[in-house]
Amino acid sequence: MKFVRFLMKNTALANVPKHIDHFSKFSPSPLSIKQFLDFGSTNACEKTSFMFLRQELPVRLSNIMKEINLLPDRLLGTPSVQLVQSWYVQSLLDILEFYHRNPDDHSVLSGFTDALITIRNRHNDVVPTMAQGVIEYRESFLEDSITSQNVQYFLDRFYMSRISIRMLINQHNAYETAKLLCDQYYMDSPALEVDQYKAVNGSGPVHIVYVPSHLYHMLFELFKNAMRATVESHESSPRLPSIKVKVALGGEDVTIKMSDKGGGVPLSKIDRLFSYMYSTAPTPHLGSSRGTPLAGFGYGLPISRLYAKYFQGDLQLYSMEGYGTDAVIYLKALSKDSVERLPVYNKSAWRHYQHSHEADDWCVPSSDPKNLAVHKIQQ
Amino acid sequence: MKFVRFLMKNTALANVPKHIDHFSKFSPSPLSIKQFLDFGSTNACEKTSFMFLRQELPVRLSNIMKEINLLPDRLLGTPSVQLVQSWYVQSLLDILEFYHRNPDDHSVLSGFTDALITIRNRHNDVVPTMAQGVIEYRESFLEDSITSQNVQYFLDRFYMSRISIRMLINQHNAYETAKLLCDQYYMDSPALEVDQYKAVNGSGPVHIVYVPSHLYHMLFELFKNAMRATVESHESSPRLPSIKVKVALGGEDVTIKMSDKGGGVPLSKIDRLFSYMYSTAPTPHLGSSRGTPLAGFGYGLPISRLYAKYFQGDLQLYSMEGYGTDAVIYLKALSKDSVERLPVYNKSAWRHYQHSHEADDWCVPSSDPKNLAVHKIQQ
Repeated sequence: MKFVRFLMKNTALANVPKHIDHFSKFSPSPLSIKQFLDFGSTNACEKTSFMFLRQELPVRLSNIMKEINLLPDRLLGTPSVQLVQSWYVQSLLDILEFYHRNPDDHSVLSGFTDALITIRNRHNDVVPTMAQGVIEYRESFLEDSITSQNVQYFLDRFYMSRISIRMLINQHNAYETAKLLCDQYYMDSPALEVDQYKAVNGSGPVHIVYVPSHLYHMLFELFKNAMRATVESHESSPRLPSIKVKVALGGEDVTIKMSDKGGGVPLSKIDRLFSYMYSTAPTPHLGSSRGTPLAGFGYGLPISRLYAKYFQGDLQLYSMEGYGTDAVIYLKALSKDSVERLPVYNKSAWRHYQHSHEADDWCVPSSDPKNLAVHKIQQ
Repeated sequence: MKFVRFLMKNTALANVPKHIDHFSKFSPSPLSIKQFLDFGSTNACEKTSFMFLRQELPVRLSNIMKEINLLPDRLLGTPSVQLVQSWYVQSLLDILEFYHRNPDDHSVLSGFTDALITIRNRHNDVVPTMAQGVIEYRESFLEDSITSQNVQYFLDRFYMSRISIRMLINQHNAYETAKLLCDQYYMDSPALEVDQYKAVNGSGPVHIVYVPSHLYHMLFELFKNAMRATVESHESSPRLPSIKVKVALGGEDVTIKMSDKGGGVPLSKIDRLFSYMYSTAPTPHLGSSRGTPLAGFGYGLPISRLYAKYFQGDLQLYSMEGYGTDAVIYLKALSKDSVERLPVYNKSAWRHYQHSHEADDWCVPSSDPKNLAVHKIQQ
């Protein structure tokens, strides 16, 4: 029996590349927040959700697994990335188990829910593990801007894919807990000055339909940064300047702006705040604790921006060096406009992983004083 | 004699492609504001400037002429673009006249200055004429985002090249008028609330070393937009909210922020404000008047951003729909960091003009309600 299971497992593994090729030919199907809400409403149907997910999850997994395979060998070969890859393979196989099962059989539906929980738990540490792989890769090779751009491109897509897969899994499991993931969230906090503006319907609080955990993640990250900058830049001051939050509701956008007087950051450093490669935080300890896995990696800002972009919004920073920083979260005002932003594996994506060590199409300013009499032919 | 001149002119024209090939092999040499200031100082030498410019101007002209040649035939063939191209050819020939002349001959130097003035005047209407070509091209063909991106890419580089060439010409001619182009400019205006912040050296006004005409161009454009938005969004209000300007000086940046309460713009429209193709202004009349050639084309913002980027700064807009807009100009605090940003013609640039009708590497959200049971294989 043990031998049969061994054989079956190896046959399944041998078929994985074929499955990935098949399912990556499909483009992921983006859902809107409105559709997520309808899923969670009374006329939702667990069977419909099951039939959608057993096709859609393999499609989303396979699309991103194609890209993992295109990573530079030295990154792909790190133990951390190998581990992450094995989780993706196993989870793909777990879902495909249900591909030909009978959707009218209740035991199939409950088995599927259990499988999703197993998958979600298996992937809990994907972000710090992948970050660990990037650190190992970065330490053993010279950093260059091409590599950094490629890693940025991949991780933005990889983490976005992960956010979307967890959203689908949590939404399906919300049936069990009879608890909607999407809630009405009302911005307020006694420790801050909050002003609200509405273009339509005059005064009163601004209401947002959004995924609370995503909104918490973004606001927590921005508060943390604003408070740290304020405290650190006013160590010798008797009073701390307050952090101001403005919320505006327009016909298309909900905009949340957080302004601090924490001394700001020069423009040239802003991009790095969103960079996975240039994260300057020391290597955190990857142990058994499940505390705040992102904190140590300096991934707070790029991941927060992905949460904003996930439903067609954005997160932008603009700073005045010598004064302070404004951080702005853009969300869609209408739940029908809040549609998932999903990476798709295709020729354009493939092209991004091909090395291109081309020259910049703008002159690189030299820091040396130029000898105006001498000209050199460009490479 | 007429026939000889005709023959000579045609020989010169026949050699133009060869000249362009030759000079486009050189990379333009970016100068810093500090170098421009030194040029204008007492130990400046007209002869050095002449020898630098008779090489550098053909290099800058040829680098961008290579790119004009790569424009789509239907755009390149419009009478407007043909006219612009003929100006560039003529100006290149005018400068090459001086290529082997004796720099110690004063009549050569004064002849060169006259030639530069002729060139500057010849190119006065480049921006509206090129804009006219884009409008003709846009009207006769379907707009698509690829074309729009290519036009944006080209015009950003073309106008930046033009800014840099005019900067060199004006700087050389400043000897004649004994007037420095670079000045100390002190931000103030009674009609506005201006706050200034300095990270270094405590209080007092912020002083900026910059090209006054460029700074005026940017601030005028931002004031105009802020005032228009404020007035138009408060037609029924008894009082207009003020426009606030903050200036901050840091170790690296000078940042100027202008904030209005003019109702803002949704995030999805921000990119269009900088687009040459999507400019919504009606076709302006291109006549003999030299009033404000840019106004009617809606090119104010993209050209202002080029002025900011020209010396390694930037111009960014952050809006809160339903409330107002912040516009931020970033300049370098140190004149040695303010180095010209110049387009260079090379393989990377060339590649941008090759048509690529590739699919987007992110899913395109459909506005139709999705049928969750149906999946389609991607193209």
